[in-house]
Amino acid sequence: MQEFEFDWHRQQRTGVAEAVLCEGKTVEQIKSILAQANQRQASLLLTRLSLAAMRECSENFTNLESHDASETAVLNNGLPALAVSDCLIVTAGSSDMKVAHEARQTLLYNGLDVPIIADCGVAGLWRLTDKLELLNAAPLIIAVAGMEGALFPVLAGLVKGVVIAVPTSNGYGVAQGGKVALGSALSACSPGVVAVNIDNGFGAACAMLKMMPVTRRSAQ
Amino acid sequence: MQEFEFDWHRQQRTGVAEAVLCEGKTVEQIKSILAQANQRQASLLLTRLSLAAMRECSENFTNLESHDASETAVLNNGLPALAVSDCLIVTAGSSDMKVAHEARQTLLYNGLDVPIIADCGVAGLWRLTDKLELLNAAPLIIAVAGMEGALFPVLAGLVKGVVIAVPTSNGYGVAQGGKVALGSALSACSPGVVAVNIDNGFGAACAMLKMMPVTRRSAQ
Amino acid sequence: MQEFEFDWHRQQRTGVAEAVLCEGKTVEQIKSILAQANQRQASLLLTRLSLAAMRECSENFTNLESHDASETAVLNNGLPALAVSDCLIVTAGSSDMKVAHEARQTLLYNGLDVPIIADCGVAGLWRLTDKLELLNAAPLIIAVAGMEGALFPVLAGLVKGVVIAVPTSNGYGVAQGGKVALGSALSACSPGVVAVNIDNGFGAACAMLKMMPVTRRSAQ
Amino acid sequence: MQEFEFDWHRQQRTGVAEAVLCEGKTVEQIKSILAQANQRQASLLLTRLSLAAMRECSENFTNLESHDASETAVLNNGLPALAVSDCLIVTAGSSDMKVAHEARQTLLYNGLDVPIIADCGVAGLWRLTDKLELLNAAPLIIAVAGMEGALFPVLAGLVKGVVIAVPTSNGYGVAQGGKVALGSALSACSPGVVAVNIDNGFGAACAMLKMMPVTRRSAQ
Amino acid sequence: MQEFEFDWHRQQRTGVAEAVLCEGKTVEQIKSILAQANQRQASLLLTRLSLAAMRECSENFTNLESHDASETAVLNNGLPALAVSDCLIVTAGSSDMKVAHEARQTLLYNGLDVPIIADCGVAGLWRLTDKLELLNAAPLIIAVAGMEGALFPVLAGLVKGVVIAVPTSNGYGVAQGGKVALGSALSACSPGVVAVNIDNGFGAACAMLKMMPVTRRSAQ
Amino acid sequence: MQEFEFDWHRQQRTGVAEAVLCEGKTVEQIKSILAQANQRQASLLLTRLSLAAMRECSENFTNLESHDASETAVLNNGLPALAVSDCLIVTAGSSDMKVAHEARQTLLYNGLDVPIIADCGVAGLWRLTDKLELLNAAPLIIAVAGMEGALFPVLAGLVKGVVIAVPTSNGYGVAQGGKVALGSALSACSPGVVAVNIDNGFGAACAMLKMMPVTRRSAQ
Amino acid sequence: MQEFEFDWHRQQRTGVAEAVLCEGKTVEQIKSILAQANQRQASLLLTRLSLAAMRECSENFTNLESHDASETAVLNNGLPALAVSDCLIVTAGSSDMKVAHEARQTLLYNGLDVPIIADCGVAGLWRLTDKLELLNAAPLIIAVAGMEGALFPVLAGLVKGVVIAVPTSNGYGVAQGGKVALGSALSACSPGVVAVNIDNGFGAACAMLKMMPVTRRSAQ
Amino acid sequence: MQEFEFDWHRQQRTGVAEAVLCEGKTVEQIKSILAQANQRQASLLLTRLSLAAMRECSENFTNLESHDASETAVLNNGLPALAVSDCLIVTAGSSDMKVAHEARQTLLYNGLDVPIIADCGVAGLWRLTDKLELLNAAPLIIAVAGMEGALFPVLAGLVKGVVIAVPTSNGYGVAQGGKVALGSALSACSPGVVAVNIDNGFGAACAMLKMMPVTRRSAQ
Repeated sequence: MQEFEFDWHRQQRTGVAEAVLCEGKTVEQIKSILAQANQRQASLLLTRLSLAAMRECSENFTNLESHDASETAVLNNGLPALAVSDCLIVTAGSSDMKVAHEARQTLLYNGLDVPIIADCGVAGLWRLTDKLELLNAAPLIIAVAGMEGALFPVLAGLVKGVVIAVPTSNGYGVAQGGKVALGSALSACSPGVVAVNIDNGFGAACAMLKMMPVTRRSAQ
Repeated sequence: MQEFEFDWHRQQRTGVAEAVLCEGKTVEQIKSILAQANQRQASLLLTRLSLAAMRECSENFTNLESHDASETAVLNNGLPALAVSDCLIVTAGSSDMKVAHEARQTLLYNGLDVPIIADCGVAGLWRLTDKLELLNAAPLIIAVAGMEGALFPVLAGLVKGVVIAVPTSNGYGVAQGGKVALGSALSACSPGVVAVNIDNGFGAACAMLKMMPVTRRSAQ
Repeated sequence: MQEFEFDWHRQQRTGVAEAVLCEGKTVEQIKSILAQANQRQASLLLTRLSLAAMRECSENFTNLESHDASETAVLNNGLPALAVSDCLIVTAGSSDMKVAHEARQTLLYNGLDVPIIADCGVAGLWRLTDKLELLNAAPLIIAVAGMEGALFPVLAGLVKGVVIAVPTSNGYGVAQGGKVALGSALSACSPGVVAVNIDNGFGAACAMLKMMPVTRRSAQ
Repeated sequence: MQEFEFDWHRQQRTGVAEAVLCEGKTVEQIKSILAQANQRQASLLLTRLSLAAMRECSENFTNLESHDASETAVLNNGLPALAVSDCLIVTAGSSDMKVAHEARQTLLYNGLDVPIIADCGVAGLWRLTDKLELLNAAPLIIAVAGMEGALFPVLAGLVKGVVIAVPTSNGYGVAQGGKVALGSALSACSPGVVAVNIDNGFGAACAMLKMMPVTRRSAQ
Repeated sequence: MQEFEFDWHRQQRTGVAEAVLCEGKTVEQIKSILAQANQRQASLLLTRLSLAAMRECSENFTNLESHDASETAVLNNGLPALAVSDCLIVTAGSSDMKVAHEARQTLLYNGLDVPIIADCGVAGLWRLTDKLELLNAAPLIIAVAGMEGALFPVLAGLVKGVVIAVPTSNGYGVAQGGKVALGSALSACSPGVVAVNIDNGFGAACAMLKMMPVTRRSAQ
Repeated sequence: MQEFEFDWHRQQRTGVAEAVLCEGKTVEQIKSILAQANQRQASLLLTRLSLAAMRECSENFTNLESHDASETAVLNNGLPALAVSDCLIVTAGSSDMKVAHEARQTLLYNGLDVPIIADCGVAGLWRLTDKLELLNAAPLIIAVAGMEGALFPVLAGLVKGVVIAVPTSNGYGVAQGGKVALGSALSACSPGVVAVNIDNGFGAACAMLKMMPVTRRSAQ
Repeated sequence: MQEFEFDWHRQQRTGVAEAVLCEGKTVEQIKSILAQANQRQASLLLTRLSLAAMRECSENFTNLESHDASETAVLNNGLPALAVSDCLIVTAGSSDMKVAHEARQTLLYNGLDVPIIADCGVAGLWRLTDKLELLNAAPLIIAVAGMEGALFPVLAGLVKGVVIAVPTSNGYGVAQGGKVALGSALSACSPGVVAVNIDNGFGAACAMLKMMPVTRRSAQ
Repeated sequence: MQEFEFDWHRQQRTGVAEAVLCEGKTVEQIKSILAQANQRQASLLLTRLSLAAMRECSENFTNLESHDASETAVLNNGLPALAVSDCLIVTAGSSDMKVAHEARQTLLYNGLDVPIIADCGVAGLWRLTDKLELLNAAPLIIAVAGMEGALFPVLAGLVKGVVIAVPTSNGYGVAQGGKVALGSALSACSPGVVAVNIDNGFGAACAMLKMMPVTRRSAQ
């Protein structure tokens, strides 16, 4: 029985290549996918790869480049040259860094270097308003926030760029699991916020790639 | 069978008098309570009194003073003299006015004149920052907001006063019923926010009364 | 007491003008806002305006242009010239038309004429695949779907453009209120879908406006 | 005290034999059931048997045949001869294989060899449409999908056979636990989808067995 | 703009014709669909058609046959001849009759006369056991139950036929909306129960039609 | 088709007669049941009978005795003689009276006169402690409370009798629908509280009847 | 600081002695309570005592009698003599035994020997009907069931005794955590079922003790 | 990339210093924050610091003072002198002590010594009423309770001081996670209760600090 049928033409069809969500897969399944990719000399992005699985796979695949802080890895069979971008990733707190890094690694894999502006939560509003010039220059901003997610409406009320909200599961009590932050993104009183799933840094990066104007993307 | 046993000593015991939550009571039950109060020459605050019930009761009780915008009424058998307060009620949007008015009427009934600062939602942050001096002078602020409730953490991150958050049921989709705004109040990243139930302007006012320093309250 | 403090500079600051969400406001409040706008000779978009309120307001404001099918209205004090767009609005079923029209009216108000492609639900997949060429030419697509919301992942797996998902509250049983369709948008297996709140056609249109490349927008 | 009263006549009564759901039972309880079955020389299917419990039981019962990938085992005291079937099991992604295998093992135990067609998720629709001939030949299809579960309505809109939907708990954020995939199955816009509980491969197989026309089943 | 694109080939493709779910559609939209169908001389089934809409449509379409108790109607441009069936519809209580009738009308529209056995709830188990012979003769049973939905597991534990469970929204308190009955169907301890959405009599009938063995169906 | 199969032997079998839950039934269905009962000269209890339906039925059945405050009615074809009981019904507030009356009417129908002690909510604890002697003499107490339902644990911590908790749907915000009060009953820190469904005064009365010691019941 | 203030008079006041819920307490806290009890020569029941904590406490307290299967223990400073009872504990499946044993141990601690009738789930209805005589002789029955909890309404429809329902957290998918089984108990169509919290065998036993007629209890 | 931007002026701006919520941060992130604080010779409060992380950090930072029972630590670079307070912390049960200690440690860090009155749950009401004089002398009371949270309304109905409710996640079944206790706090029938998030002892302490009258606070 063939367990995987990889969608090798997804990039061509949709503009974003298929990646491997490792959560829910056995290490054997992941290795089998990596072997198939190497056979085609195709590069692959792996997300939600536990540190244990990361170590096990690295032993077998020398062209696997791991990134601990985001629990991602790249099977490198050639990647696009890096272009610097005027887009941004903004986080509310340091607990949101892992998800922000997942977004950043996905963008790097696709040839785009997008900086992370950390720790801009609204509890100290000056941390956000101090960077207004920088924020206003970005046509697209990935905002990463857990707990009450107030960063989403506040940011969207201040800048012209699109705010792609990534709620995170950081928080406890009523905020546990990220439902409050997601609710904040979806019912933000500032118009034009769009949201992806809780903790979905990968999806936010894919959305950013798809939103990028054709001319700008070709500059990469 | 005696259907009501009013807690006439609640004010003395807890500092806040019992009020009548009219929702869920028949007009007959409300009238019976009003009659008992008049018999004792006691004043009474009625909350969540539908306009229909309001009209019906007003016909029978000439000392019932109605307030449409808040769906409250006062059975006036003598009220404390009004004192001006340095406390504030702040709302995010005009849909939150009814709840804000319920808080204000409750405070007026207890002798305290607290102004409402309307329409300070974070979508236009300048509406909040423009009033920072005023807001910072208030030792206690009732903040009323629906939808994503970002007003709570933002306000609490800006001022020294206590923020009593009243989430409202304004909003649709995931925000319907007020659970997102409540979640925002409870998981606010700015410390020191306290919350009452959704749409509970009355409760917020009671909390404000109880928090008021003894010296200030005696000034009323 | 001043009940409204309109955010007249929101367009300049964020690229999208403030609109009036009429749900939760009394007709008196709406009229007061319209009067203020007329005084400034400012145009205004009103959303979720019940037919009853629409009729009442129309009597007082002759420059109010109503649109029944979307429950929106425009206070017309001058609007941008209309530009035809290569963007699209796609709906799963005819029950989703009201929300699709809200998006379309918002775009029209902002000078963009975006057509609606109706009734493309996945139950008859040919309705979608038949239009693949048209769909693939659109850089931005607003997809409107209720019930199980399978349109979101299927569409996003077929086209290069950004899919802005608007889940609708159409559906019964477990789908009642739109939570299943929203879940489908957020956990879509095709990367790059972004979502707005349930029934939020207005928000989807604002997001589309913000995503539009600068060059294209100036062409309006 | 007798802890178990096995329903040995269930197959005769309902067409499907009782199986042992091991989750929630101690190893001692499972062993005791196995011993009782061996005493009656009855075969038994065990589901949700953890690998640890599997190993422990295997040491004591030499006629216990384990299947790791599905966490099932069969106490073999004679099984029906295998018949090849024109029915199918279809999965959306490789994370759904465990549940698909549970269904397949249950069918094998009952004498039916049903193949698994893996990795047919709608993100790459061609993976489904490429197999349309094969899919259309199956009178009964078990479809296994997590995340947004769009496979259910899409498949049911393409084929004549019954679609027995098994939502899986694969997914994170709003999809965590399988509620979104279940909702997708239950509110599918394509008529005729039926659903079983989340991750219930066993139940789907039982339903397939019961739906099989009498003549076909006797052919086994 | 064309609002509807009817899926006229669905019957041929999937074995069940498209029907019109009227809930969420305006009377104008429904009339427009009916007119299109008459133009093609096609018959149509309408479900969840409110009595008001029913009356309004009946005035314009003389070949529209209404059925009040199920809130369905049939636009009759020729229907299949009726065949008597050995299948059954079973209800727990009289409050479940509307949903049972929706199933029955859908089957009648497709040429199958399936009787309803009413009021078999488990509170008086004899009502079920008294009919065991009748129930055991049915290869397919649609079971309709609200409240705690215990009918599903009990029935499935007694008979050989497939049990298609239709949970209903009848019930109050924790049972309100049908979630408990649905949960009962999905987690039934008797294997082989399959479920459709809450109150979805139409879907259950479609599933029954699809499950019917080819030979039996051609006998219609 | 026979729509009802009444369980006339339920009293004999379970000790409590079947009653008719009118919510969800049409007036025609209710009348049909009443006619059947009169034909057998059987008495019947009807619960959740709307005032409109009550009036309509009363016109046709002269032996139907209505009770507005509880929305119940009794078809009187002979009832047991009334016995005074040492059991009690206790309510937290006047909004809970309707549910308390449903319990009382059910008990009266079964020959037991149980008084209601109203308005004992814990906000004024003296209302409860003042009646401790009375409360302690009752072997069985039905406690009816909405909102936060603190009456259940407090009462159970004070008395020897069984506390049958009936949470009510009175309350707003997080308490809306009665889930908080139900949660309070089920997780009461005082042992020995048992709960019935939200607003289920009928069920509480049935439970009380079943708990009554044989000797005491024969005394009726 | 004194961390515990034991309620030594609870038995006298409410008829049931205070027990120690060990979940959520540190081993140090538990030991401190045990020491206090020994000092007063008081017996104590401990529930939800993890096996690890059990072992640690047993080393220090020689009069602590552990019961593994129920995760309870008794600090024995004298217990009432055991009386045999005509009451029963009934379980749906073997996964429910732990909770059933918690109930049984609580009853034993209070001097009452109540047998457990295991594995009576409704999937094989004969397991229940075979024991009807036995079941009908019991004035009080604790019924323990997880998954869909159909045992509660079926049992209550068959017997005269009170059914005290204990839903358990056994089950997966929608049944996970016990909410479906609890819903089944609360909305059971058979009147007179009362429920305690999920997995609360202790509470069910306390309720049974309180319901026991005075004469019978004195016989212990 | 700079991961942290500490809000050093928060105390001056809002009256409460920023603290470090360690849950969700890696030990490396925590150490980096501690190093930055030491560099500024600033004191810091750390909350939700796991015992493992506590030990690891203590090795590197000699001025880190740990408090196991509350999982907090203080980086001591000078703290305010301690003042005794007439405020109180009250807990329902011993499982609530950890959260109570978090509140107490936060107050100590801010120079206020507030005693904990333990084990005052309403199951033994005398434990509360015995201390009425003490409780009535406190202008502000932090009440900590899990399970059904009845302590909140009962306490608030007895005393004049403000009740700051901290629901805890202690409890199982429907009370698991603290939602019932939170609901009890928010819908308390006694007016003037305010709530913070589940298990948020830190937030309650911050709220208490902000509520303290200016004159009283300067007395510290």
